[in-house]
Amino acid sequence: MRSLSNFGRCAAWAALLGLLLSAPGVAAFAQTDPMPSWNDGPARKSITDFVAKVTTQGSPDFVPPAERIAVFDNDGTLWCEQPIYFQAAFALDQVKAIAAKRPEWKQQQPFKAFLAGDKKALAEQGQKALLTLVGAAHSGITTDTYARSVAEWLTTARHPRFNRPYNELTYQPMVELLAYLRANGFKTFIVSGGGVEFMRVWAEKAYGIPPEQVVGSSGATKFEFGPDGKPVLMKEPKIEFIDDGPGKPVGINRFIGRRPILAFGNSDGDHQMLQWTMAGSGPRFAGIVHHTDSTREYAYDRESKIGKLDKAWDEAKAKGWTVVDMKQDWKKVFAFEP
Amino acid sequence: MRSLSNFGRCAAWAALLGLLLSAPGVAAFAQTDPMPSWNDGPARKSITDFVAKVTTQGSPDFVPPAERIAVFDNDGTLWCEQPIYFQAAFALDQVKAIAAKRPEWKQQQPFKAFLAGDKKALAEQGQKALLTLVGAAHSGITTDTYARSVAEWLTTARHPRFNRPYNELTYQPMVELLAYLRANGFKTFIVSGGGVEFMRVWAEKAYGIPPEQVVGSSGATKFEFGPDGKPVLMKEPKIEFIDDGPGKPVGINRFIGRRPILAFGNSDGDHQMLQWTMAGSGPRFAGIVHHTDSTREYAYDRESKIGKLDKAWDEAKAKGWTVVDMKQDWKKVFAFEP
Repeated sequence: MRSLSNFGRCAAWAALLGLLLSAPGVAAFAQTDPMPSWNDGPARKSITDFVAKVTTQGSPDFVPPAERIAVFDNDGTLWCEQPIYFQAAFALDQVKAIAAKRPEWKQQQPFKAFLAGDKKALAEQGQKALLTLVGAAHSGITTDTYARSVAEWLTTARHPRFNRPYNELTYQPMVELLAYLRANGFKTFIVSGGGVEFMRVWAEKAYGIPPEQVVGSSGATKFEFGPDGKPVLMKEPKIEFIDDGPGKPVGINRFIGRRPILAFGNSDGDHQMLQWTMAGSGPRFAGIVHHTDSTREYAYDRESKIGKLDKAWDEAKAKGWTVVDMKQDWKKVFAFEP
Repeated sequence: MRSLSNFGRCAAWAALLGLLLSAPGVAAFAQTDPMPSWNDGPARKSITDFVAKVTTQGSPDFVPPAERIAVFDNDGTLWCEQPIYFQAAFALDQVKAIAAKRPEWKQQQPFKAFLAGDKKALAEQGQKALLTLVGAAHSGITTDTYARSVAEWLTTARHPRFNRPYNELTYQPMVELLAYLRANGFKTFIVSGGGVEFMRVWAEKAYGIPPEQVVGSSGATKFEFGPDGKPVLMKEPKIEFIDDGPGKPVGINRFIGRRPILAFGNSDGDHQMLQWTMAGSGPRFAGIVHHTDSTREYAYDRESKIGKLDKAWDEAKAKGWTVVDMKQDWKKVFAFEP
C-alpha cells in the first residue's frame, strides 16, 4: 500500500523534475518582464509580436534558431552619440596626448580641428574624417596596446554633459532588448560605423555581445615580429573598410554571411542595412530609434550632422517599420536614472 | 511510516533527477569515444591532454569558455586539397561555362591555363592567381546567385581520383575533433585562404561551423538595387582580402577579435596563424596535419606546390607542436572508407 504522504513526496520530486525539464528562461519570462524599461505601446508590441511569431514551433513564420540573426547599429542605437561620437572623443584625447611628437598635425585636417578642440568643425567633416584621424593617430602601435589604451581611457574620461564614463551611456531598454532576443534564441551582432577594435574592448561587458559578433569599420594591421621576437599586429594609418551606409550590408555579408531577420538603427547610415534585412523572404523586423528626448538624452533627426535621420525615416513611415519614440516608448533611457 | 517500496520509487525519481542534472555530454563521452577515427598515440594524447587541462575548473590552466577559440585552416586541414584546391576546380568549371562570352580570356593568365585544362600551370600560379580568377569569373552576379552556383556544383561535380562529391572529402578525424572541442565549450572557426563565400555554402553541414564562424579570403561586393527594385550585393572583380600566411592573424583579429588558444593547419600558409596563436599567454595548442598517406589520400610536404609544408614544420619540430601523421594517427581518413 502506498501512503498518501509518501506519494506526496514523490510528487514533489516529479514536480521539481518537470520544472527542470521545462525551458527555465521561458518560465522566468512568464513571471518577470524581460523589458521593464519599455512602456506598453506599439513599439514594444511590434517587437514582442515579432519574437513570438518567429519562435512558435509549427507556425508558418517559425525561424530556426541558427537563422535568428539580429543586427544593431551602435552609435545612437545602443549608446549615446552626442555631442560627438564617443570614439571621436577618445581619438581627441589620444591625439592631444601624442601631438607634441607630430608638429605637422597643426596644419592638417582633421587633426587641426581636433587639436583646436573645434567640435563643430570636427562634426562637419563627418565620420570618414574621424576614422582617418583615429587610424592615423594610432598607427605604429600594436593591437594589444590600442585595446589597453581604450580600456584605460574608459576609466578616466567623462561625458561632458552627463559626467559619467562613456560606457555607462548605453540605453537600458536596448540592453534589455538584446538580452530578450538572446533568451529567445537570437544571435545578436553589432554592425556599426565605429571602429571594430574600439568597440570590442567594452561591448561584451556592456551588451553581452562577444568580440566575434562585433562588425565595424577597420584600419589595416600588419603581422610583424616585435623587438622581443614575438609576433604582433601593428596598426597602420590606413582605413580598410567603412562599415556605414551601403557598407553595412557589405559588412554583414562579409562578417556574418547570413541575412539578418531583425535590424535596428537610428540614422540614414543604417538605411541600407534595414533595406537589406527587409528584402529577405519570410518574417522580418526593421526598427529605428528616434531621438525625441532632449531632457533625458537628445532630440535630433533630419537636420543633425551626427546621426541624421531623414530618408530612412521616410521609408520607415511608408513601409510600417517600427519607429521607437525615445520619449514615449522608454521608461528609462540610462540605467543610472533614478 | 514510510514503506521501503515507496522509498524505492522516490529513489528512482531522485536518480533520474541526478542524471538530468549531470552534464549529459560529459556522461556520454565517458562511455563512448568522441574521436573514434584517431589511433592512440602522441597526437591524440596531446589534444585530449590540452582539452582536459583548459576545461578543469580550479586548475591554473583553466580557460573560460568564452576564450576557448579554436581556429582551423580548411584546405588540407579539414578537407582534401589535391590535385588542385577544390575551389579552383569549381572556378574551372564555372569559367568554362561562361568562357564563350569572354573571348579575351584565351590570352590572359590565369584564364588561359584554366581554359586549357592545364592544372600544372594553374598550380604554379599559386593561390592568389586562383583567387583572381575566381573573382573575375564571378563578377557581375549577386552573392545569392553565387551561393546557388556553388551548391549546384557540389551536387554534380566529382573529384577526379575518388569520384565522389567534393564535400564528401572532409577528414573524418578532424570532423570528430571539431565536435569534441565544441562539446568541451570551444567555439570553432575556419580561417582559410579559400573564399569565404565558397566555404559558407557547405561548411555548416560538413563541419557544424555556421557561416558567421568562417573567415576566409574575399572579393569586393557592392550594394545595389536590382531590376525588380530589390537590394542586392553584386560581386565585383576585385580581391579585397587574402586570408593566407601573414593575412591569417590579420583575418583572425579582424573577424574574431580574440586570439585563439588552439590552431590547426597543414602548410606554411598557416605558419603565422600558428605563431600568433602560440604567442599568447596561458595554455596554447598548435597542430599540423602532415600528409603522409599516398594510399588513402596524398603524401606531400616540403616540395609541394599546393600545401607546401616546410618552415612551419621546422618550427613545429623545434617547439614541440603537435604534428599529426595522417598514416599513423588516423584510423580512417574519409567517412566513406569501409
